[in-house]
Amino acid sequence: MSYFDAASAAPLHAVARQALTASLDEGWADPARLYREGRRARMLLDAAREATAEAVGCRADELVFTASGTSAVHSGIAGALAGRRRAGRHLIVSAVEHSSVLHAAEVHQAGGGTVTEVTVGRTGAVSPSGFAAALRPDTALACLQSANHEVGTVQPVAEVAASCRAAGVPLLVDAAQSLGWGPVEGAWSLLAASAHKWGGPPGVGLLVVRKGERFAPQGPRDERESGRAAGFGNLPAIVAAAASLRAVRAEAAEEEVRLRELTERIRARVPGLVPEVEVVGDPERRLPGIVTFSCLYVDGETLLHELDRAGFSVSSGSSCTSSTLTPSHVLKAMGVLSEGNIRVSLPPGTREEDVERFLAVLPEVVAGVREKLGAPVSTGEAVSRPGEDTALVVDALGRRCPIPVIELAKVIGDVPVGGTVRVLADDEAARLDIPAWCEMRGQQYLGEEPAPGGTSYTIRRLT
Amino acid sequence: MSYFDAASAAPLHAVARQALTASLDEGWADPARLYREGRRARMLLDAAREATAEAVGCRADELVFTASGTSAVHSGIAGALAGRRRAGRHLIVSAVEHSSVLHAAEVHQAGGGTVTEVTVGRTGAVSPSGFAAALRPDTALACLQSANHEVGTVQPVAEVAASCRAAGVPLLVDAAQSLGWGPVEGAWSLLAASAHKWGGPPGVGLLVVRKGERFAPQGPRDERESGRAAGFGNLPAIVAAAASLRAVRAEAAEEEVRLRELTERIRARVPGLVPEVEVVGDPERRLPGIVTFSCLYVDGETLLHELDRAGFSVSSGSSCTSSTLTPSHVLKAMGVLSEGNIRVSLPPGTREEDVERFLAVLPEVVAGVREKLGAPVSTGEAVSRPGEDTALVVDALGRRCPIPVIELAKVIGDVPVGGTVRVLADDEAARLDIPAWCEMRGQQYLGEEPAPGGTSYTIRRLT
Repeated sequence: MSYFDAASAAPLHAVARQALTASLDEGWADPARLYREGRRARMLLDAAREATAEAVGCRADELVFTASGTSAVHSGIAGALAGRRRAGRHLIVSAVEHSSVLHAAEVHQAGGGTVTEVTVGRTGAVSPSGFAAALRPDTALACLQSANHEVGTVQPVAEVAASCRAAGVPLLVDAAQSLGWGPVEGAWSLLAASAHKWGGPPGVGLLVVRKGERFAPQGPRDERESGRAAGFGNLPAIVAAAASLRAVRAEAAEEEVRLRELTERIRARVPGLVPEVEVVGDPERRLPGIVTFSCLYVDGETLLHELDRAGFSVSSGSSCTSSTLTPSHVLKAMGVLSEGNIRVSLPPGTREEDVERFLAVLPEVVAGVREKLGAPVSTGEAVSRPGEDTALVVDALGRRCPIPVIELAKVIGDVPVGGTVRVLADDEAARLDIPAWCEMRGQQYLGEEPAPGGTSYTIRRLT
Repeated sequence: MSYFDAASAAPLHAVARQALTASLDEGWADPARLYREGRRARMLLDAAREATAEAVGCRADELVFTASGTSAVHSGIAGALAGRRRAGRHLIVSAVEHSSVLHAAEVHQAGGGTVTEVTVGRTGAVSPSGFAAALRPDTALACLQSANHEVGTVQPVAEVAASCRAAGVPLLVDAAQSLGWGPVEGAWSLLAASAHKWGGPPGVGLLVVRKGERFAPQGPRDERESGRAAGFGNLPAIVAAAASLRAVRAEAAEEEVRLRELTERIRARVPGLVPEVEVVGDPERRLPGIVTFSCLYVDGETLLHELDRAGFSVSSGSSCTSSTLTPSHVLKAMGVLSEGNIRVSLPPGTREEDVERFLAVLPEVVAGVREKLGAPVSTGEAVSRPGEDTALVVDALGRRCPIPVIELAKVIGDVPVGGTVRVLADDEAARLDIPAWCEMRGQQYLGEEPAPGGTSYTIRRLT
């Protein structure tokens, strides 16, 4: 098996395992207690905090350990918003933040706050000027990830932090995907991260609040972790998290070069190996281990199953793989194809031969899924019958992604160049995937309008 | 070293350790994923949930894993109150609940809700009729612990649950201290617990919400754990928690008899070994492993240090051992002595000889601390000089617990029988400890009144 989903959860680093096992014996007592076992636990906790703070680039007393990255994000946003209540109730987030950030923003909005979602370009990055333009006199907090978890695009955090600082607005950085690779640059004010993303154990998140930032912890009070993370601390896991962060950092420079070469290989070769593929995310400013692409005429769930059968564990932002039947909000915000979406995120230590094997297997897997779904064979040729302008209608109501796009592709050859075709669909993914298909195939997307039972999408054939 | 503080955190059970280590290899992936590692993680999670639900006595789909017992309590109370918002905003808690419950009640009150704290008797138990009397038409939720964490007193949960049920009010039981010993009886509606209290790893709590109970999770949404516990699950620890709960339950019947005999030995012998001691908590309806007593004229912190030097790890509810300089709210609610307080909580497997060694060491440790503090030597005789009624005043302003009580004890011999003495003190513990001293020594406590710089407590000498 090749596990290529490190961005969801990285396998436990060997150092984390050793530290966890060792501290099960030393670190189970309450570090607030005065007796020997408590003092020993306190020493372990202090040492873990020092080591982690050093890796983050902050003071030890600015960093608390939380129960997860999600809880660090939730507590950080709630505490910062409450601490800045007098400044206003406006929150800025990018449109491609992790769901934990977007869900915290929903709660803020439901409670009477206002939220601006800063859009991203087609590579998934915000523009520093676009972000700066969202700053208002009543902005209490801005949030930006250090790098995107689905497409690997690195965000311009330092530039955004500078404009936030100039406006007197704290910036919270969700560094979950990047902290294992290095500290976050720029003058950020708060930072959240998650140990299981860098090879530490689950159950440990980090919340850093720079000295001098206004912060009012929400929820029932609890004196542990400076009042910012309630509950008995998960000390053995905290010790393991600290040890593994140090270990992955020591290996980061070398691994970064290696993984970047492997993901670049996937980026470069997939479009040649698989017809009708869109590789997404920034080609340059990206994390070393993540590469994401979408395959036309394929449904993500079947693709995941077939890749799993072939021995590869990857994830997908396609709608059919989520419980909500909507495509990934990241792909949506980028305006790229969501059907047949595959995220490959390589854990440190990934072997070259496994990537080669993936590249060898992928074309036949995609072809197999397409054949099953009756996708059009890509000939590159289209039969043009100019003169006929009967507006063709494809009824894909009740059909799930990628069927509407497949049906569209099947009939486009029957549409005269310059003529139009309408697709009726009620699957949410069509709204994203039909325009994306047009972009990929050089056809013109004319827009959508409500139709009985769904939406009508109109496409003009150009080539 | 003898670790006698299992009620704070129990050392990891051998089975928990094995399960944790084993599942580090199998249980690190995201159980929501469709690939092999994810399915394996999902199977482990499902099996852990089934096993834990069986031990709790609930359905698997009623139980979610949280990041700690504290977070289970916080989420449980917030969700139940929100779910019952239409019934009203009245919350009932006992006065001796764990701080996580009381702090959640504070938040509810700060948000406009009302809270009734049900008082307890001198043994620490609520009376079922007293609890029932607090129920109102607008009561949204009632909370009662299964057993007290500081004195071991078992609460009448089944009776209280019955009256709550009759009134249509859900009862949330904090079962943190008792779940390792057996399921909670009675018709409770919600239950919270914490794995590290039964020998499981830190980082795992349980929240059970019975089917049909109204429950509206608060905070940012998260689809994991039925929307009731946000964040990436701590699966290896969850597996270990489930395995160790099963293991401690298998050993519970035998260990209960053994530990009950050992704590009974301490209860019975300490008053004979150490003069001026009050053993607190219910002598019959109590947890097997907890015994608590308070020693006059001793400060808790020094006592803890000396016991630690002698090789015993215990905890204390005395004010001088907490960061707030107020005595334990439990001892306060019970109206018992708080100075020189010691809680002995024996972990399963505690050896008889260690308890015997504790009983051998305790008298000299207490005597040593008393000598250092200049406490009065207990002679049992008091010089009586009837006729003199000059109201004596002891100025203990600025002196910390147990000095005010020591000074009172020193002068009581100079007070004629029938005469009074006033103690001026500004230490919060005096409010509890001076009446408790009167009760123990057969003197009459007449009450308190404000005095410049503190409070004046008046005592009449009776014997």
